Amino acid sequence: MTTHDAQLDDYLARARELDTTSPLCEARDAFDLPEGQVYFLGNSLGPLTHASRRAVQNAVDTEWRVGLVRTWHDGDWLELAGATGDRIARVIGAAPGSVVAGDSTSVALFKVLSAAAVHNASPARRVLLCDANNFPTDRYVARSVADLHGLVFEELPVSEMPARFGPDVAVMTASMIDFRSAEVHDVKSVTAAAHDAGILTVWDLAHAAGAVKCDIAANGVDFAVGCGYKYLNGGPGAPAFMYAAPRLVNQVTQPIPGWFGHAEPFAFEDSYRPADGIARFSSGTTHVLSMKSLHAALELFERFDVDDIRSTCMRLGDFFVEGFDTFLSDSGFTLGSPRDASRRGGHIALLHPQAEEMTTTLIDKGHIVDFRPPNVIRVAFSPLYLRFADVASLVSLLAGLRRS
Amino acid sequence: MTTHDAQLDDYLARARELDTTSPLCEARDAFDLPEGQVYFLGNSLGPLTHASRRAVQNAVDTEWRVGLVRTWHDGDWLELAGATGDRIARVIGAAPGSVVAGDSTSVALFKVLSAAAVHNASPARRVLLCDANNFPTDRYVARSVADLHGLVFEELPVSEMPARFGPDVAVMTASMIDFRSAEVHDVKSVTAAAHDAGILTVWDLAHAAGAVKCDIAANGVDFAVGCGYKYLNGGPGAPAFMYAAPRLVNQVTQPIPGWFGHAEPFAFEDSYRPADGIARFSSGTTHVLSMKSLHAALELFERFDVDDIRSTCMRLGDFFVEGFDTFLSDSGFTLGSPRDASRRGGHIALLHPQAEEMTTTLIDKGHIVDFRPPNVIRVAFSPLYLRFADVASLVSLLAGLRRS
Repeated sequence: MTTHDAQLDDYLARARELDTTSPLCEARDAFDLPEGQVYFLGNSLGPLTHASRRAVQNAVDTEWRVGLVRTWHDGDWLELAGATGDRIARVIGAAPGSVVAGDSTSVALFKVLSAAAVHNASPARRVLLCDANNFPTDRYVARSVADLHGLVFEELPVSEMPARFGPDVAVMTASMIDFRSAEVHDVKSVTAAAHDAGILTVWDLAHAAGAVKCDIAANGVDFAVGCGYKYLNGGPGAPAFMYAAPRLVNQVTQPIPGWFGHAEPFAFEDSYRPADGIARFSSGTTHVLSMKSLHAALELFERFDVDDIRSTCMRLGDFFVEGFDTFLSDSGFTLGSPRDASRRGGHIALLHPQAEEMTTTLIDKGHIVDFRPPNVIRVAFSPLYLRFADVASLVSLLAGLRRS
Repeated sequence: MTTHDAQLDDYLARARELDTTSPLCEARDAFDLPEGQVYFLGNSLGPLTHASRRAVQNAVDTEWRVGLVRTWHDGDWLELAGATGDRIARVIGAAPGSVVAGDSTSVALFKVLSAAAVHNASPARRVLLCDANNFPTDRYVARSVADLHGLVFEELPVSEMPARFGPDVAVMTASMIDFRSAEVHDVKSVTAAAHDAGILTVWDLAHAAGAVKCDIAANGVDFAVGCGYKYLNGGPGAPAFMYAAPRLVNQVTQPIPGWFGHAEPFAFEDSYRPADGIARFSSGTTHVLSMKSLHAALELFERFDVDDIRSTCMRLGDFFVEGFDTFLSDSGFTLGSPRDASRRGGHIALLHPQAEEMTTTLIDKGHIVDFRPPNVIRVAFSPLYLRFADVASLVSLLAGLRRS
């Protein structure tokens, strides 16, 4: 046995041991994972839980088929956007009643960013700052919001924002986690710097919720949005979510005042009267089937501790980094993500000149990762179902590729 | 046997005969209708089809569970909003490629009305006209669009719009069918009058699509939106749809430029470049589970002729009106909808001072209608699953109520 083989055996053995002592070792049973796949793309689309399947099936076969329109009043459909929001609030460290689910992340950001911009813009404050490394759709939407309200649109990296904050800026928007590098921005200090300059903050938690601790309330965040289908496992195209700080929510209005955001949706009043609290950010009818799936998937975040979820996510990533250092770093691989787990979100960008061919080989061998041009293999460590043994298996495969 | 009883027997017998000769008599088998209910609220939430159940189940168990994120590329999720739009295009008389499904009707109207308003407003054209009898959410959204773009918001009944049309008006929006009375507005003549004055039209087809012929292209309509969960049977909170006339679509932009409306969603370009055609009205990720249900339900509109659907809807309503004249008109009931089927949408408002108690009794006896204050029983004649025998049964029950 070579030194390499012995090291690998040890790495694999330690992985199995770590799995048996993980505080989340029972969470995996909640998922209906496909046979023959080890799935590293929970940052893109989380896998199916048994709870989501049951909830969707019940929504179709009982609530819709039998209850029909009366389920709006006899069932939980009317409260579903808020109830789902409450489950998300727990995940992101927000107060109950401060989050509502609905729409897509693009539409959610449009509404929330518009509300913040309108509230804080003034003749002196005309600038809307946007994270230059933001997910593209956020950049498109932010520019549109600026244009609609006659604001000046400026893009720059989050790290440069505090130096730019000043009395001419109305609002800033950024992703908490860089979708390429997984770098975690310091929400607390950026938000504090913004507040010192009288600026409102709108954070996109798409790559954060369910993988890192967001501590939205404790960090003083004003507004946030996020995605239901990544680490929250809500299903393909699951509804997004919106947060507004309780101290602000009743002072702001959003631009799409539909009946589900009305104080009395079924009173059919002549004029719009926004609901109290975050419900005013709802617009149209809840997409029930998609929302049922998201709501059910979030059960897991009630059963398992958010601190355990975050620490397991970090440890899975650290275990991969250890494997990288031991088996991969001397053969053309480099890390495209922070080594420090506290500065890293749920995924790691692994760089290699042959990344594209390697991705194909990994997928052929049942290890599902993805390739991003020009040279990135993305690997996400969604903590609720991935095992240390899965990470070891991936490292072992990658080590084999570099030797073959 | 009294004359009344003999008349009722004859009415019931004719109903059974009409059912056997209906061109849609096989369509009912496509639905999984609940036992013991006769359902007259297809204008509010259409019932479940077997096709929708299968599609949702397959989306959960195969496309999501097994295919996971790769289904975005290996499956049909990326094309789903457009494919669903194409099926709706057929229903509303629009060209393939001119309709896209997505969002809620409130969000859809916001996007489409904003696009129309921005395109046609000028220093001289500052007025946005809204149907004063429009569904409330449409009125709220229309006012918000006017406010956002510095336009003057005016509400008046559709019948008074042509007299108001003039060079100061940029855009008008109205529902094709009044959600209270079911009155069908003359889309063709109102649109022609609008065009004569240089005004763009935005029609809401929520209560029309699937119940009446909209002939959107032939009627020269500029923009339209509508609802997926009423006569289209897409399921609770099914996605809405958006239409833009092909002659206009590439000249307009909508205010929520998300990645799914980008020319190359996965190129992650720095700037937004709208897709060609109606796809530019998409914003965020398709709500796959809800969309799958809608897409599958629309199969029926491919299998059955849209003319047959409209004519059956009218005949069901006429058969109810006949029953009203014969059995109900002399005991406190009045019709709150047009008698002329060509001027009437899919439902009929039946007025009675005891409407609320009557609604409760009807529901207790398995005839599902709804009550709208102060005195309205709403009864919809969704033609794909309702039978003439169902209508006769309702009339017979109502006749019994007035005699008891």
